[in-house]
Amino acid sequence: MDTAHPTDLTEYCEKYEQAMSLLGKRWTGLILRALLSGATRFSAICAYVPGLSDRLLSERLKELEAEGIVQRLVYPETPVRIEYVLTPKGRQLRDIVEAVQAWADAWVPAPSQA
Amino acid sequence: MDTAHPTDLTEYCEKYEQAMSLLGKRWTGLILRALLSGATRFSAICAYVPGLSDRLLSERLKELEAEGIVQRLVYPETPVRIEYVLTPKGRQLRDIVEAVQAWADAWVPAPSQA
Repeated sequence: MDTAHPTDLTEYCEKYEQAMSLLGKRWTGLILRALLSGATRFSAICAYVPGLSDRLLSERLKELEAEGIVQRLVYPETPVRIEYVLTPKGRQLRDIVEAVQAWADAWVPAPSQA
Repeated sequence: MDTAHPTDLTEYCEKYEQAMSLLGKRWTGLILRALLSGATRFSAICAYVPGLSDRLLSERLKELEAEGIVQRLVYPETPVRIEYVLTPKGRQLRDIVEAVQAWADAWVPAPSQA
């Protein structure tokens, strides 16, 4: 089959479905945006995402760690310092986050108009 | 502020959150992928997305119509013909869908390895 588009969407794709169900989970998109913006500390990520509880952030970070998207770094200082950083798999989510941001900027009404 | 990246992610963005919560909803990402691939008939979209019930597809299409992403076209033929097509707002989701597909192709393990 010949297609003008580089990405062939004509058939259902399980990988796509898995990616969407991972990224579409509540809070995950914003947590990834926070990490891409350079936040590394638990408290900084939490502050970046209004309404996100410590418990849910902790849960989401564990999920992202299990998926190989986030790495948890522990620095044995006093007090101990913990950072959350994106792996190469995680950093490559930037294209998706930026595409969502561009679409949102173009099409989602400003909060005051909503 | 000066930034090397075209998209500034340093601040929380409510538009981004709204876009993510819309697109991240279960089935929506696959329904959009089906529409972008050229499917227009209810039965074709349903067949494209394994496991999606008629009831949920109908609900999602109504939501996407309410968001101005999908337009429902009724052709007064016998029998009546109904098509679902993307609006300009909907067609511009292609960049997101393609970015998710590219990431999924690169990083999500094949179903047999999962």
